[in-house]
Amino acid sequence: MILVIGGGPAGRFAAVRLGNAGREVLLVEKGAIGGQCLNYGCMAVCALNDAARHMQRNREFAAAGILDGAPEIHFPALLGGMDRVQEKIRAVLDQETKNAGVEILYGSTARLDGRKVFIDGEEVEAEAVVIATGSVPAVPVVEGISLPGVYTAHTLPRMETLPGDLVIVGGGVQAAEFAYIFSMLGSRVTVLARSAFLKGLDPRLRRLALKELKDVDIKECAALNGVNGNERVESVSYGGNESETCRADAVLLAAGLVPNAAMIEGVEKGLKGEVRVNDRMETSVKGVYAAGDVTGGPFLTPVARLQGVVAAENILGIDRRFDPAAVPQSISLANELAFCTAGDDDGVEFSVPAPAGPGSFWSVPSGDTGIGKIRVDRESGEVRGVWAASPGAGIIATYMADAIRHRRTVHDLDGLLDVHPIPDGVHGLIGYAASWLRDHPKE
Amino acid sequence: MILVIGGGPAGRFAAVRLGNAGREVLLVEKGAIGGQCLNYGCMAVCALNDAARHMQRNREFAAAGILDGAPEIHFPALLGGMDRVQEKIRAVLDQETKNAGVEILYGSTARLDGRKVFIDGEEVEAEAVVIATGSVPAVPVVEGISLPGVYTAHTLPRMETLPGDLVIVGGGVQAAEFAYIFSMLGSRVTVLARSAFLKGLDPRLRRLALKELKDVDIKECAALNGVNGNERVESVSYGGNESETCRADAVLLAAGLVPNAAMIEGVEKGLKGEVRVNDRMETSVKGVYAAGDVTGGPFLTPVARLQGVVAAENILGIDRRFDPAAVPQSISLANELAFCTAGDDDGVEFSVPAPAGPGSFWSVPSGDTGIGKIRVDRESGEVRGVWAASPGAGIIATYMADAIRHRRTVHDLDGLLDVHPIPDGVHGLIGYAASWLRDHPKE
Repeated sequence: MILVIGGGPAGRFAAVRLGNAGREVLLVEKGAIGGQCLNYGCMAVCALNDAARHMQRNREFAAAGILDGAPEIHFPALLGGMDRVQEKIRAVLDQETKNAGVEILYGSTARLDGRKVFIDGEEVEAEAVVIATGSVPAVPVVEGISLPGVYTAHTLPRMETLPGDLVIVGGGVQAAEFAYIFSMLGSRVTVLARSAFLKGLDPRLRRLALKELKDVDIKECAALNGVNGNERVESVSYGGNESETCRADAVLLAAGLVPNAAMIEGVEKGLKGEVRVNDRMETSVKGVYAAGDVTGGPFLTPVARLQGVVAAENILGIDRRFDPAAVPQSISLANELAFCTAGDDDGVEFSVPAPAGPGSFWSVPSGDTGIGKIRVDRESGEVRGVWAASPGAGIIATYMADAIRHRRTVHDLDGLLDVHPIPDGVHGLIGYAASWLRDHPKE
Repeated sequence: MILVIGGGPAGRFAAVRLGNAGREVLLVEKGAIGGQCLNYGCMAVCALNDAARHMQRNREFAAAGILDGAPEIHFPALLGGMDRVQEKIRAVLDQETKNAGVEILYGSTARLDGRKVFIDGEEVEAEAVVIATGSVPAVPVVEGISLPGVYTAHTLPRMETLPGDLVIVGGGVQAAEFAYIFSMLGSRVTVLARSAFLKGLDPRLRRLALKELKDVDIKECAALNGVNGNERVESVSYGGNESETCRADAVLLAAGLVPNAAMIEGVEKGLKGEVRVNDRMETSVKGVYAAGDVTGGPFLTPVARLQGVVAAENILGIDRRFDPAAVPQSISLANELAFCTAGDDDGVEFSVPAPAGPGSFWSVPSGDTGIGKIRVDRESGEVRGVWAASPGAGIIATYMADAIRHRRTVHDLDGLLDVHPIPDGVHGLIGYAASWLRDHPKE
């Protein structure tokens, strides 16, 4: 028997791969299948963002006289509806996993100590182990953090009413995504970013993000100092020496994730508690593998899934390596903001406003159809980076990530014939860049 | 001076390419820049479809108790808003074209007789000519067809009220798209397809289309026999020997396009009146080129644009050929239904329901997240076809068309790392197909 600990994307993909190969697999999942991705992360953001974008468009159509009013959202019904869809997806994942011949043990906890594994305290024999225990939200250690009204993405489904004033703690992707959602649902949102907001994001995408979050009060260099209130949260304190105060009916902690490895002992760990692995996803203990967030990030579902598969294939004796190059990423605001780079800053850049297409025709009046941008090697024409903001930009980044990984050039891709219309500024740049490079050979 | 006749996608791309190369170009456009694509075709469908999808979601959210009601649409305001956005895009295209050094003559008509060209009846000298006069809606020759209340896509913007009963004549993509739009906006829609509805479409996509058009009364083998009414349309007659009648407040003719070549004489034409060209877009007369719909279809904007560029480059002395292989296409209903094939039916097929992602999370309850399907050569693993139905499927088909055209294999594409979540069933099939082919070598 091969033991997989955790039924999130990494563990599930490892288990299914092993099951499909005919191996006996036991998947231990203490909570719900699908991990943070389905239950508190990607899919929850997707659900709420789809509703938030809908609310934004309703208001725009009403303002233009196209609709005879903008209906109000019923927040508990939204969360309830989301949970019912998640439940449906959980059932699909459960079935899909069992169909691969995997046995799932729900509600049990597994613990590992070097090569020894315990399920609910009892030692079991396993030929190999895949640790896929994921990550948990980072919770700042400040006074009042346990007051009712303070949420993480994990407890958000228990929020009973839409907060009038919501403070979101964090300056990264998750904080930005929740800020867009709650501001469109109707909360007054303040974001407290410890240093800069969306630090490291391409400047064009960042400017666009700030425009799409124009109703959000974003405070930078604003570390959370404390949460104040009696029965429940009433305000938060933040900032440097001269701490300031900001009213809050609720606080949402969105300040990143930390590997969930408390129950894992006897394997080498890094500074943040992550289980250390090589590119075969092998830990320091023979026969023990780890995959996904527990290995320390980048905390992305596709990476976790692929690491799970890599771990499984190495258990099966296939020499497969995880290559972290050209991982596409996205941020869901009014548009998707998606990007993928080869990891350097070299090359010529080309950019355009994204054309109007399905999902963005009515964004033309406000100039919010998004952008497309590519970075291309001056000599070879290799695509070195792609940035897209529009509906469906995640799809663009996915397929263009393949071009980046395979070092394809704009000349290879030239003649790309599109479907029309699509809200994609990138495909048109490919032909343009190919012509430009031909007309401007490097001296 | 090089004369370009028509400012739609083909003419505009030809003119801009020639202008950018420093040539003197005169573009004659009798109406509005952007052609049918912007003014009556792609972008109009996009505008109305975005509104139709929005109305569908409003009703679904209201039914689920997530919204406290579904607002009504104000149809004249919708058409007015659409026109204002189109006007904005027209201004952008006008500027973009002029920026390339092209002179635009609006409101004039050009006529061609062999190598002679006339503008508003006066002969002019031109080094070369690009005929890009596009196409016009096919209008069946039946009694009553000129009654008020009978529209084509060209006159639709003058429709003053949303019809209670709308009859759409046609069984292809355009008929399906308008049927979805008007049924979601609130009309009772009947479609009269002369033979089969969406004939030739992949059976899976067709089943999905029929599901998404479930409120539409689709009549097959139902040719239009006549339009009846006194002051304006009241009903239509259709069918074979025993003609039937169907109530209609309005009739929309969406039965295809015919090349617009009445003012073009002295060049070889085909059976449907299309100007015949070779793969350099040369007509039978030296120095006279034609591009886009006037050459007889497939009546797609990206094809017209590329043909315009090919004509321009051949005028510039560059030996460029138009290759009609692997043209992606789409149909906009509740989902985008998009596809691209290598032109044959050989290979192994793999398909899945599309996963929930941005734009489709709330389609999970009704099972309407769409599908992904690929066809792969059994031996080489070459991608021979792709079909996608989901939000953003047009983007998938665009980038996968490149894979088909370049004969890339699922093994080349394996390891595709996606952005998560995306509503794309295709990318996951690539890795699956690669493994399957490895595990099932052909005997």
